[in-house]
Amino acid sequence: MHSAIDEIAGKQCLVLGAGGFIGTNLCRRLLKLGAKVQAFGRSKTFPEALEGVTWISGEFSDHAAVARAVEGNELLYHLVSGSLPESSNMDPAADLSANALQTLHLLEVCRVSNVRKIVFASSGGTVYGVPSHVPIPETAPTDPIAAYGISKLAIEKYLALYRHLHGIDYTILRIANPFGPFQLGHRKQGVIAALIQKALAGETLEIWGDGEVIRDFVYIDDVVEALIAAAIHDGPHRLFNVGQGAGRSINQIISGIEAVLNRGELPKLYKAGRPTDVPVNILDIALIRRELGWEPQSDWLASLSATAEWMTNRLGYTGMGVV
Amino acid sequence: MHSAIDEIAGKQCLVLGAGGFIGTNLCRRLLKLGAKVQAFGRSKTFPEALEGVTWISGEFSDHAAVARAVEGNELLYHLVSGSLPESSNMDPAADLSANALQTLHLLEVCRVSNVRKIVFASSGGTVYGVPSHVPIPETAPTDPIAAYGISKLAIEKYLALYRHLHGIDYTILRIANPFGPFQLGHRKQGVIAALIQKALAGETLEIWGDGEVIRDFVYIDDVVEALIAAAIHDGPHRLFNVGQGAGRSINQIISGIEAVLNRGELPKLYKAGRPTDVPVNILDIALIRRELGWEPQSDWLASLSATAEWMTNRLGYTGMGVV
Repeated sequence: MHSAIDEIAGKQCLVLGAGGFIGTNLCRRLLKLGAKVQAFGRSKTFPEALEGVTWISGEFSDHAAVARAVEGNELLYHLVSGSLPESSNMDPAADLSANALQTLHLLEVCRVSNVRKIVFASSGGTVYGVPSHVPIPETAPTDPIAAYGISKLAIEKYLALYRHLHGIDYTILRIANPFGPFQLGHRKQGVIAALIQKALAGETLEIWGDGEVIRDFVYIDDVVEALIAAAIHDGPHRLFNVGQGAGRSINQIISGIEAVLNRGELPKLYKAGRPTDVPVNILDIALIRRELGWEPQSDWLASLSATAEWMTNRLGYTGMGVV
Repeated sequence: MHSAIDEIAGKQCLVLGAGGFIGTNLCRRLLKLGAKVQAFGRSKTFPEALEGVTWISGEFSDHAAVARAVEGNELLYHLVSGSLPESSNMDPAADLSANALQTLHLLEVCRVSNVRKIVFASSGGTVYGVPSHVPIPETAPTDPIAAYGISKLAIEKYLALYRHLHGIDYTILRIANPFGPFQLGHRKQGVIAALIQKALAGETLEIWGDGEVIRDFVYIDDVVEALIAAAIHDGPHRLFNVGQGAGRSINQIISGIEAVLNRGELPKLYKAGRPTDVPVNILDIALIRRELGWEPQSDWLASLSATAEWMTNRLGYTGMGVV
């Protein structure tokens, strides 16, 4: 990882979709590593967290604005998601337009720019669909049961096509379920943030299904290190899973939250499952371990605790001991 | 195949993209089997060949026209291709819109219709990209080097999604390089038709590359039988290669054409290769053999001869002996 840190210093890079959870964390880390960071997004969810970043407000569908933002950058992070996994199934055409179609416009811009490398945040939680076995390697079948995963897959294929036709290099990270500071619980994505927020507010935790749905939760600091390593990676592989490589059920998460909040058992309500839910998703991270030397470094309870502490400060709750 | 023939009789079916090469052949066969055939397309390339078919002129992008056409049909063939493999790389966004996005609108129509089954003509020649080995099984990696193949792949994934979410059944046929009557040589698709037409016109045959590019050429009568078998298929597999299961080089095709035209050696001109060309494509057809009991029945030279004879009649060339 040392080489990655050296190579990123002074680099002019653009983060698309920078205002959200992953984007905010990534921009802060890039700045700390000495990169010159331009950040493009609809809005900054956490303006104070992005000090030192050159912020450009814009819609991903505004081709001229994207073209202006791309100019002069050699490294590009594509973190834009114009939809959410569940709502994508209500209007797959809108999802395809907002994601794949707009990414094609971005790629056309990149063809005539200085961009040498694109790092794309794909979705380890949706591109595989219902896995035949876990952990899931990158070579597993990709049969999404959410439109969100299909447009992510299409973008992956277009990146490979543009490299083939136009020589633009790329690395794709199929990221599992990230959690940590700067993730808000008000969207359906981010179950840990949502649960912590409910717990802090003293509300009943709503659980879809029986709480035994298993996901691969990975701490945002680890995800950010993978995004940094991907930027400078130059090898035969261009597609990597990024996850903990281990699964946790919703019920286990709640136990973890109960442990770090230290407020006893939290009130829970179990509700009917959702059709976009796959029963289990755990990513095989052997490839990124081997090729990029990356692996998750974070301790589970310490990560949960840091997340709860951030959420506590964010929401202004006080006097609720976070262990 | 007998059961297929019985089940298709009297069935109300709609062929989308019916005016072209595969569509014209399929409609004729469906009629012969006693199906009630509605045919939807931009235009009939061969109006006289579609007698007995209820023809609906329309654009695939005209959602209201597609919705009206779908009404009352339980079986739907989706043969629409709004682009060609090569030109798709000049404007991948247009290709994605014309194909995947419009297919999503079709699928939304199907959700609220009587359609029980969709048979989709995918592309065995483009979805796999450059294969690591041949023949290519359905489980091989799908890394297209033409945007055309990416939108076909996306459509495959959306069909699976709509079955998962809404119960619409489907069968996908990844068709290799079909040839035969009702294929015209004026488009870049259909190298055999193009070569025969040039040969009949006494023009020099233009060959991209050294003529050693290998493709899996399959006769249209065999493709049509696979489309019929797919319509009534009900099993765990929903995705099948359709090809000869064997490869032929462009030079071998030319030898074949020379043999059936019986006019001696034809004049040839070798030109630079194209970036969308994969060096070799041969499909593994073990799965469709086993699951659908389908296999190619046609003799190579007899098929070429029938194709040349059709082209001769079509173009009004006379006195050129086709063996």
